[in-house]
Amino acid sequence: MLSHLSSNKSFGGWHKQYQHRSDVLNCNMRFAIYLPPQAETQKVPVLYWLSGLTCTDENFMQKAGAQSIAAELGIAIVAPDTSPRGDEVANDEAYDLGQGAGFYVNATQAPWDKHFHMYDYVVNELPALIEAEFPVTDVRAISGHSMGGHGALMIALRNPERYRSVSAFSPIVNPSQVPWGQKAFSAYLGGDKTAWQQYDSCALMATSAGSVQLPALVDQGLSDDFLPEQLQPQALLNAAEASGYPLTLNQHLGYDHSYYFIASYIEAHLRFHAKWL
Amino acid sequence: MLSHLSSNKSFGGWHKQYQHRSDVLNCNMRFAIYLPPQAETQKVPVLYWLSGLTCTDENFMQKAGAQSIAAELGIAIVAPDTSPRGDEVANDEAYDLGQGAGFYVNATQAPWDKHFHMYDYVVNELPALIEAEFPVTDVRAISGHSMGGHGALMIALRNPERYRSVSAFSPIVNPSQVPWGQKAFSAYLGGDKTAWQQYDSCALMATSAGSVQLPALVDQGLSDDFLPEQLQPQALLNAAEASGYPLTLNQHLGYDHSYYFIASYIEAHLRFHAKWL
Repeated sequence: MLSHLSSNKSFGGWHKQYQHRSDVLNCNMRFAIYLPPQAETQKVPVLYWLSGLTCTDENFMQKAGAQSIAAELGIAIVAPDTSPRGDEVANDEAYDLGQGAGFYVNATQAPWDKHFHMYDYVVNELPALIEAEFPVTDVRAISGHSMGGHGALMIALRNPERYRSVSAFSPIVNPSQVPWGQKAFSAYLGGDKTAWQQYDSCALMATSAGSVQLPALVDQGLSDDFLPEQLQPQALLNAAEASGYPLTLNQHLGYDHSYYFIASYIEAHLRFHAKWL
Repeated sequence: MLSHLSSNKSFGGWHKQYQHRSDVLNCNMRFAIYLPPQAETQKVPVLYWLSGLTCTDENFMQKAGAQSIAAELGIAIVAPDTSPRGDEVANDEAYDLGQGAGFYVNATQAPWDKHFHMYDYVVNELPALIEAEFPVTDVRAISGHSMGGHGALMIALRNPERYRSVSAFSPIVNPSQVPWGQKAFSAYLGGDKTAWQQYDSCALMATSAGSVQLPALVDQGLSDDFLPEQLQPQALLNAAEASGYPLTLNQHLGYDHSYYFIASYIEAHLRFHAKWL
């Protein structure tokens, strides 16, 4: 079931990579897990990290510098890949469609519908596997960057009973209104834009009054090249105001879209989640 | 002279990449610098970081997680490339010879002698450039990993007046006696092994009694695949005992040769250097 690929000791815990057969994605998938030292003697809660366009399980684990704080707080971190992968999986030459660009949706359009079901994978299949195979509890938080920030917010908004808290760096908050999202949703979901709304964090948050609302933290760099066209965090703030959602949006002068930004604020995100885990 | 390539805000300071023409290497070179927030108002000391085989200026800056501590301590970090580069520079198909594998020596043998003078570059040309162009003092420390750990120890042992302290992760301490070093030194320095001794940290440290001796810290993972054949830190400990060198060697169960190990202990190295800077 679970094939072990690598292990690296890290801050007294372990970074590990595994491969497994995913039923919902219909292909082999790789993920990484960081197990803090506390996991040697007790079950620990899990933060799921969803990465951005072109990333694999490796970018966050190598570049974010999260392990030192996760080891202190006793939180496991799971980083899935960003799409189904493999020779038999549909792809596109563009970096923002196909492999590496799953957008955390369940595709309904050919050729993508055969494998691109990242929503079901992240919400159900992967946590079930993680909770069966590793010393973790079913207490979960979720976070991500850019396309993965969209995934984290959207999944938490649709499944608030499954998570304690949600955060994002530089998320695509309103994919149905910006080029990255419109391109991906047209391909994966088709031209009927009503089907897009279930994957649009602004639409979901704006209509969340009366539902369970999770503590939510978003950090955005103000020198991010993608800010004006693709990210537009003000739209999420407007949606939060419309529904009374407990969102904190921090905007940072000078920071860009890179992992240098994520690394600078990952400690704050982990401490935020730890309050609720 | 100095061509700016990129800037990323990081922990209140700046990670920047530059290209410049190196006279001693006879080619264009790239380096990275991390300037902590303190450098906006005062000159700060510099830690030079020498990377290992196949690395560029990017590996340490992206993976070590050093910026958070450097920002706290007010230390700049400079990461040069690991060799001369370019189409006109001699190379070899092996990962451990030629471009990416300069071994921090001044090559005397063709075809390497035209460009491979990393010793002079790291000891003289690069610090002169850094101290002329950036808000830094001439107070320096030096550290590195694997081949770069060899470089840091060897350069500090030969130039103790230029540095306040030296440290290394998983260094090649006795290159004249192990396969990586023998291959590189044969190519760059020729078959006369007496010429190798000036680049061998064990040989230099063993004969350092009576010279200025620097505070020295070495960390080694005990699950490092390269430990028995290539690294052999016990040889350095023996040399330190022979000369009374103030070396601390920490050996860590379970840790390997990767940046996951470096990240786990980089804070300790930065705090060690900060005591002397």
